[in-house]
Amino acid sequence: MRDVAVIGVGETEFGELWDRSFRDLGIEAGLRAIEDAKITAEAIDAVYVGNMSAGKFIDQEHVSALVADYAGLADMHLPTVRVEGGGACGAVALLQARMAIASGMHDVVVVGGAEKMTDVGDVQAAEILASTADQEWESVFGATFAGLFAMMARRHMHEFGTTREHLASVAVKNHKNGALNPNAQFRREVTLETVLSSPMVAEPLGLFDCAPLSDGAAALVLCAMDEARKYTDTPIRIVGSGQASDFLALHDRRSITTMDATVAAGERALKAAKLEPKDVQVAEVHDNFTITEILAIEDLGFVEKGKGGPATLEGLTALNGKISVNPSGGLKARGQPVGATGVAQAVEIVTQLRGQAGKRQVVGAQRGLTHTLGGTGATAVVHIFERGD
Amino acid sequence: MRDVAVIGVGETEFGELWDRSFRDLGIEAGLRAIEDAKITAEAIDAVYVGNMSAGKFIDQEHVSALVADYAGLADMHLPTVRVEGGGACGAVALLQARMAIASGMHDVVVVGGAEKMTDVGDVQAAEILASTADQEWESVFGATFAGLFAMMARRHMHEFGTTREHLASVAVKNHKNGALNPNAQFRREVTLETVLSSPMVAEPLGLFDCAPLSDGAAALVLCAMDEARKYTDTPIRIVGSGQASDFLALHDRRSITTMDATVAAGERALKAAKLEPKDVQVAEVHDNFTITEILAIEDLGFVEKGKGGPATLEGLTALNGKISVNPSGGLKARGQPVGATGVAQAVEIVTQLRGQAGKRQVVGAQRGLTHTLGGTGATAVVHIFERGD
Repeated sequence: MRDVAVIGVGETEFGELWDRSFRDLGIEAGLRAIEDAKITAEAIDAVYVGNMSAGKFIDQEHVSALVADYAGLADMHLPTVRVEGGGACGAVALLQARMAIASGMHDVVVVGGAEKMTDVGDVQAAEILASTADQEWESVFGATFAGLFAMMARRHMHEFGTTREHLASVAVKNHKNGALNPNAQFRREVTLETVLSSPMVAEPLGLFDCAPLSDGAAALVLCAMDEARKYTDTPIRIVGSGQASDFLALHDRRSITTMDATVAAGERALKAAKLEPKDVQVAEVHDNFTITEILAIEDLGFVEKGKGGPATLEGLTALNGKISVNPSGGLKARGQPVGATGVAQAVEIVTQLRGQAGKRQVVGAQRGLTHTLGGTGATAVVHIFERGD
Repeated sequence: MRDVAVIGVGETEFGELWDRSFRDLGIEAGLRAIEDAKITAEAIDAVYVGNMSAGKFIDQEHVSALVADYAGLADMHLPTVRVEGGGACGAVALLQARMAIASGMHDVVVVGGAEKMTDVGDVQAAEILASTADQEWESVFGATFAGLFAMMARRHMHEFGTTREHLASVAVKNHKNGALNPNAQFRREVTLETVLSSPMVAEPLGLFDCAPLSDGAAALVLCAMDEARKYTDTPIRIVGSGQASDFLALHDRRSITTMDATVAAGERALKAAKLEPKDVQVAEVHDNFTITEILAIEDLGFVEKGKGGPATLEGLTALNGKISVNPSGGLKARGQPVGATGVAQAVEIVTQLRGQAGKRQVVGAQRGLTHTLGGTGATAVVHIFERGD
């Protein structure tokens, strides 16, 4: 397999962006990444797009062709591929793009992720998100994402003594980081008290335990490592990737307090990179709910099983803690335009490894990791990145 | 790049299958392919799924995880990837799966394609199909697929003298072939008179110029060529693949009587395979409307531009004609469960090259080609297959 590096990154701000369409957002992120990579359109061999549900959010399927068209690339007749894997679609797209270069089929590939969620009402958006759980056994009976993750949280409390304060500390940390990120949807800190007293959504998850609905897009330019130095002095290598699936419905799983897909994806990525969790200084993990980040840092091996809550409350995962988790603000504070998530996580890690993260810079970051979930954990993807020097 | 071969094929019957769900269909096709390949579940490294719009047809996104789960593979935590590219999604999924093996990431991959279209009404299905055209410039103003392809047909008549008889001859041929295919939706011949006198859908396209809405699934097992002979004596190599995009909306294209994406995809696949159109004996091409097959055989270089109609009427593309086009019956007679199309085309070509196509066998077929369109031609994918011996 040929080595692959990230040579360009771009993103839009995340938020309720009523003045911009899906097309606008995808193009803005893509052009920023292309500009950052200092490549011309002629260098691009293919475009990959991560998108969860444009068909339902904006009535537009086939967004792969749309993105190339509106980026002004239609005349080049590039291959364009849309990948969907629930909330993990951006990370799955990145993996497919990596394979396309690794195979020798392409040399330079643009990977974008985008979602425009706020054109529909909140209830409809919740229904669309729930369509990535098991429609016939969960969603059709009224189970929402918040309800399903609440069950995981409640069970985690029961098994490991996790408290609402532990959960809330994830939100406090991620808002603190998000306040330092100019592209974040929520650029303000919140107190533990604010999170704990927020209206209940699905007990024990309150409003501030839940990531928002968002519009936004992110993009990467990938290049074969042996060509990367033509374009940049700081190529960021993808040194390991792992993807795994699990039972779609929660009730079929071995456990709902361990995400087996996360465990498998993490082990596969670390094995491919010949690394251990302790070798990673910075991680962007899936935190659509506060419980999800706790499960992620446990299942990725950053902390002992059951200790994710206390570790977070004690600051081990804070910016420049033992391991910096979600320096971007995560899905919680940066925002959650679903298709963009996996790509935006990679944008943050590359920015960190380049040393360009400004006020939220993780000091001395050499290796970073992204972790992205689809559905309630039926898909998990982990990528590990390393400075090329 | 590592060589890749098809070592197993499977499909369901196509039709209005009201007794079977999306899940049932996907699993049936997948298990048949696995059985045909004589592999065990443990050999499978990954699953790829082509699906256009399960989110809208059956309210279920994230069908990648679903398929692995319902196939009994969830415990293996395989990577599963859903690819969408309008009507081309099955063919795009096949290309991604090929790259995954070519890259060295995987050795054995199952590729499935499925769609369950008849659970919604005809009007809603037409709207869903139209969401793969340009929503903001075409579909929202009421343009249907039939309407958009009718414009291509009318213009082709104007530029090249194509007649309704020429168009109708595509349907007559494909029904004749479909009558020989036990899995086809329409297993009966039709006369030119029947096609010409069928109710008008979008002038000049009558009912028999249009492929039906269908339920169905198809699957392939791919394997690295250097491992393929462990499983089969007749591996069918994929010797060339090409994919291309174009402007999403018809009105932006250079021409609506030449599909530039088809031209580019065909040239790329033939170049990769070091072949010319005359080297191919059998082709499955996209014929969602009769005009589409005429455009395809012209743009792939099988006949001179503008001569697709007369060539078809004269029998050049009939079974065991100069080149056998759509021996399966094509989308027109075999049926059109959109996500399954690209995969089912490959199933037919592999079956032909193995010499197992029964009454519709193309005598002496050594090389075959599939051509699949997304939207009104904004995505095109071509794969070329060859007997391994």
